[in-house]
Amino acid sequence: MDSKECSSKLLPVNDALDVLSGKWKIPIIVALMHGNYRFKELHRMVGVSPKMLSKELKELEMHQLVKRTVYDTTPVTVEYELTQHAGSLRKVIEALGDWGSQHRKKVMAKK
Amino acid sequence: MDSKECSSKLLPVNDALDVLSGKWKIPIIVALMHGNYRFKELHRMVGVSPKMLSKELKELEMHQLVKRTVYDTTPVTVEYELTQHAGSLRKVIEALGDWGSQHRKKVMAKK
Repeated sequence: MDSKECSSKLLPVNDALDVLSGKWKIPIIVALMHGNYRFKELHRMVGVSPKMLSKELKELEMHQLVKRTVYDTTPVTVEYELTQHAGSLRKVIEALGDWGSQHRKKVMAKK
Repeated sequence: MDSKECSSKLLPVNDALDVLSGKWKIPIIVALMHGNYRFKELHRMVGVSPKMLSKELKELEMHQLVKRTVYDTTPVTVEYELTQHAGSLRKVIEALGDWGSQHRKKVMAKK
């Protein structure tokens, strides 16, 4: 594999890491894998501050992973759901989780 | 899934992200998937500064992903190779790469 071919393989791996990195993105995505929720519900479920949740949801919207729907009720209801594109993350999250468990056992065993 | 069960699933995912995050860890791992290399070779292949490479290799050693072997030659030769534990990362890197390509196409299509 030459270096150009190699970079073209690394680019999407880094893209994916960029989208998923940080403390809250994956917990928010995993919460929304269990259903659609309102802001306050997510805030309680994930245990993240409202300010951070708002920031993270905006970024996830930008990456087309979360859809925000405003319902014309009184008071207005805002609901968040995963897009189809986010559904394809399940495999990635599983692979990370599997390896992370293995890694945890390995590192613990040495201590 | 209750919140305790959920946290116990999230923990290893975050572990894995912690180990892999940053700009250089994955490029270094991918380079070493193609063979064992010396410090200077890695420096050239990955295009990372010696200072950063040294820091990253130490962290990878700590996580038991890279093994450093010193050969008693004149001058001394130091070679880096992946551990078996790092081999199990292939599936994770592939899953990240697959999703990253899909994401790139999706985001490009909207622009």
